[in-house]
Amino acid sequence: MAERFPVPTMPAPPVAVVGLGQLGGSLAAALVAAGRPVRGWDVDPAARDAAAARGVQISQELSGVVVLAVPLPVMATALDGLAVAGDATVTDLGSVKRPVLDTVGTALGGRFVGGHPMCGTERSGHTAADPGLFAGARWALCLEPGTDLSRWLRVAEIALAVGAEVVPVTAAEHDDAVAAISHVPHLLAAALAAAAGQAGPLALSLAAGSFRDGTRVIGSDPAFVRAMVEGNAAPTSAALARVQEQLARPWAELVGDGHAVVTREQGRRSVRVPLERAALLSLGRSGGAVTRRLAAFVEGYVPDPA
Amino acid sequence: MAERFPVPTMPAPPVAVVGLGQLGGSLAAALVAAGRPVRGWDVDPAARDAAAARGVQISQELSGVVVLAVPLPVMATALDGLAVAGDATVTDLGSVKRPVLDTVGTALGGRFVGGHPMCGTERSGHTAADPGLFAGARWALCLEPGTDLSRWLRVAEIALAVGAEVVPVTAAEHDDAVAAISHVPHLLAAALAAAAGQAGPLALSLAAGSFRDGTRVIGSDPAFVRAMVEGNAAPTSAALARVQEQLARPWAELVGDGHAVVTREQGRRSVRVPLERAALLSLGRSGGAVTRRLAAFVEGYVPDPA
Repeated sequence: MAERFPVPTMPAPPVAVVGLGQLGGSLAAALVAAGRPVRGWDVDPAARDAAAARGVQISQELSGVVVLAVPLPVMATALDGLAVAGDATVTDLGSVKRPVLDTVGTALGGRFVGGHPMCGTERSGHTAADPGLFAGARWALCLEPGTDLSRWLRVAEIALAVGAEVVPVTAAEHDDAVAAISHVPHLLAAALAAAAGQAGPLALSLAAGSFRDGTRVIGSDPAFVRAMVEGNAAPTSAALARVQEQLARPWAELVGDGHAVVTREQGRRSVRVPLERAALLSLGRSGGAVTRRLAAFVEGYVPDPA
Repeated sequence: MAERFPVPTMPAPPVAVVGLGQLGGSLAAALVAAGRPVRGWDVDPAARDAAAARGVQISQELSGVVVLAVPLPVMATALDGLAVAGDATVTDLGSVKRPVLDTVGTALGGRFVGGHPMCGTERSGHTAADPGLFAGARWALCLEPGTDLSRWLRVAEIALAVGAEVVPVTAAEHDDAVAAISHVPHLLAAALAAAAGQAGPLALSLAAGSFRDGTRVIGSDPAFVRAMVEGNAAPTSAALARVQEQLARPWAELVGDGHAVVTREQGRRSVRVPLERAALLSLGRSGGAVTRRLAAFVEGYVPDPA
């Protein structure tokens, strides 16, 4: 007979979102859509109005779980001038985690839980908000040695509530991983586009699917891209060097190996993982994620060869 | 008062497509949809059956404009065993033009017109055929010093009939251009995927939009990709070196320049170009294309700052 665990019945904490652009506006809208009260704030009145129209209560008094959904360069000052409850848990959605941990994390101590939902697009601003943005996305959530596990679970619950799957990571692991799968792709896209621009109008006029796909991401706001790659410079340089090693290999081998990675069939095997830092991080390192929280466990999956 | 030119009234020549996979099957289906009789042949009975079901007359006796829509490694032998009319114009859809000119072009002389529609996807085979594949696509068509202009116009007419825009190029110009905008993107995608595969399961589990877009094209059949990059090795090496020079620049500059290329607004200005090799090639070099054939001119456009 299968063991049964009760679903936790503690009330979900209130959520407040600071920054109501694409990611913050989408999160606030998704939580409203899930029937949860959400407060929000943005320095831009147009972003506040758009969020208010979606049912977000505009306020500068924030409590519960406070989500920093602002660009990296202003992350450290995002709470300036706002009234934040002394026991609030603070998380962020920034694309680099070590620098945020060094600034916001140092200031807030155990109350800070760094996070990064893997679902932005090349669009930005409140007009790009979409309550379905997080459905099925992975959401990296940092479990540092000093992270308060109960606060980590509160933030994880919000990610799960909007349809994401939570990947437990350290900030260092996160930054190395996203250098390989996000920050280097932005630089490759920029280099591909810039080189084609130099090749001239005939080349650009013949550009089709492979060029469009290979360069799409550099359509993103260049200020955001610069903050991201420069904020994660050492892992990005290392990951770029690994791509350049690949480019030096014989093309036949390179093409075969690259094809194998993108076409690999990957199954999933359900697992239960105790609410314990090492076990959760091990789940993340294996390529797994948390899909549900139970009383003393989380449910999730690990990859399984199909 | 605007000059008026009569639309040519000569009958469109019959078309025969050899190879009924994604590109050939799409072209045959598009021509059938345009009300034109089309013959076709493929060594694979399943591809023949699929084309026959779309209204293509399956035959080994080919005349008019014969389109070689087979993979590069078998291009030179694609007509072996088939009965081709002695005055047929032969064109191809291969992604590299100098090697095809050196083999098929040398064998057929002035009867050969090299071509390359810029619209493949990462899919292949007859199940990926789509009669709408060419709508709005650029179709590079080679005008070498020895090309018979009337045969070139016959092939151009077929490209225009399925909704493509014809870019006059030399084989050498084509191969340099596609190295920059297609062959290098395939290698970058392979290197990005292979490096992320080495980075491990956490990195792959966090992969999202920028990784998917940046690697999509290496989902293509690796044998096709190898034939393409190895068949255009010198221009591809040179274009890859130019991308690597870009990657060595300060990231802030690189990101800004790449962003500017992909977000550049580009208008179009209508032009008429006389049916003359130098003028047509000049149109292609400027980033323009032919959109319609008149009696003594073609109509087309050149890029215009928006």
